[in-house]
Amino acid sequence: MQIGIIGLGLIGGSMAIDLKRRGFASRILGVESDPVNAAAALKMGLADEIIPYEDCIAQSDLVVVAVPVGTAVKMVCDILDRYKESGARDKIVIDVCSTKEQINLSTHYHPCRGQYVSTHPMAGTEYSGPWAAMPNLFDGRACIFANTEDSDPKAVKTVEKLYDVLNMRPIYMDAASHDVHTAYVSHISHVTSFALALTVLDKVKDEKHIFDLASGGFSSTVRLAKSNADMWVPILTQNHDNVLQVIDTYIQKMQAFRDAIADYDGDKVRSLIEEANRIKKILR
Amino acid sequence: MQIGIIGLGLIGGSMAIDLKRRGFASRILGVESDPVNAAAALKMGLADEIIPYEDCIAQSDLVVVAVPVGTAVKMVCDILDRYKESGARDKIVIDVCSTKEQINLSTHYHPCRGQYVSTHPMAGTEYSGPWAAMPNLFDGRACIFANTEDSDPKAVKTVEKLYDVLNMRPIYMDAASHDVHTAYVSHISHVTSFALALTVLDKVKDEKHIFDLASGGFSSTVRLAKSNADMWVPILTQNHDNVLQVIDTYIQKMQAFRDAIADYDGDKVRSLIEEANRIKKILR
Repeated sequence: MQIGIIGLGLIGGSMAIDLKRRGFASRILGVESDPVNAAAALKMGLADEIIPYEDCIAQSDLVVVAVPVGTAVKMVCDILDRYKESGARDKIVIDVCSTKEQINLSTHYHPCRGQYVSTHPMAGTEYSGPWAAMPNLFDGRACIFANTEDSDPKAVKTVEKLYDVLNMRPIYMDAASHDVHTAYVSHISHVTSFALALTVLDKVKDEKHIFDLASGGFSSTVRLAKSNADMWVPILTQNHDNVLQVIDTYIQKMQAFRDAIADYDGDKVRSLIEEANRIKKILR
Repeated sequence: MQIGIIGLGLIGGSMAIDLKRRGFASRILGVESDPVNAAAALKMGLADEIIPYEDCIAQSDLVVVAVPVGTAVKMVCDILDRYKESGARDKIVIDVCSTKEQINLSTHYHPCRGQYVSTHPMAGTEYSGPWAAMPNLFDGRACIFANTEDSDPKAVKTVEKLYDVLNMRPIYMDAASHDVHTAYVSHISHVTSFALALTVLDKVKDEKHIFDLASGGFSSTVRLAKSNADMWVPILTQNHDNVLQVIDTYIQKMQAFRDAIADYDGDKVRSLIEEANRIKKILR
């Protein structure tokens, strides 16, 4: 199967590596708008060739849209338009974006909607670009399939096979539930890391000391603050309502800690910490 | 040298392992008030024997106080009292606590103050108890020495040698600066993780889904929320003023994100993220 991958960054590039070496893709056709990234992706062997967007849609049996979610919404619609015009009824397009409601709303009434499968492979690191791509990134992680009832069953089967090759566990849910869940288990973590980085950068101007003192705990909590704005601005603004609701709850919890500490109320601090400790049971 | 270690948990136990196998300690005399932990520590070989507190002070050349900071403040004073009574002027006591101002204030005018060296080895994990102890925990990390001008130079030298055996880099600062710095690079990280855990636990009652969806990013951001209340209640309440100040700055930063997202102000969200990204330069 010829696989087109639009955006050879962390996610697109990592999919390219494993789909090719595990034999699912006979050929990877890459599209990459940034010339430096395109040259690097080619040299790193992420794609067999880098070709123009139009040619990629025309030549690929399955296209993976792996660009930031703002661009992806328009791109998936455009690809479905091209499938319609060319009468290519067996081709499939998937996206891998971190918000699913808007892209599903935008494509919902498209006459070729069935050829689109809406997915979110829940894997990643805080790095971006083709140099962040790595083998085995997806192994053992969950992949969400959103609104599969809107896709052709045959297309869903093919995409299930693709993610099975990537060793991912499929989870099925509607797009709106996806966006609520990811606001809680992914989007808020990024906002808390960004805010932590800003807090520390604001205060300690003596950067040598931060570096010296930053222990493993700080590094892991602030790790996501390295994440790329191109990816995260559209996620946070598209998932607006859910993200705001989670931030509000979060600020209330923070305020509860603040008040307990301000009151020297050790019992209250203890009960908040012990309640938070219940996360252990969930994270094995 | 006979080393007494009071509290054979993560820090005390890990020190015991490396001080013994690297030859700095000829014998480890452990004190452990919890009978289950004492039996486990002995079986795991963390100490050569578990003895009563009084005997440990009398028989050890150097005592490491590795208990939560509330208890440690009283214990260091008591040990210095015993040194005074028994005329043991060559013995040394150190603590390894995460806040340094109160313990230094409490001991400042003690006639045997010189025999106390105030340190904070900046290493750890989110786990606790003797079963959390591990070899090489301290390798390459920073160890803060607070108010060394109050300690006998000979005692400081011995303790520097101890931390050199643990492969730690010494950093010297006054206790007040220590507490400001650790509020920013350690204490706030724990509070943000606790608040994140509470937020997620509050909302998503269907624990199966959190577990399924929790990606690496969430796990690393929430990891510290597994930390032990016995250790963290006294840290947060002792470092009251600094922790409150950092929490207030943090809530402001969080609110800035909230307002930018609420206003659909993508440019502002982008500028906040890009500012936060500067943390990259600091964390290598």
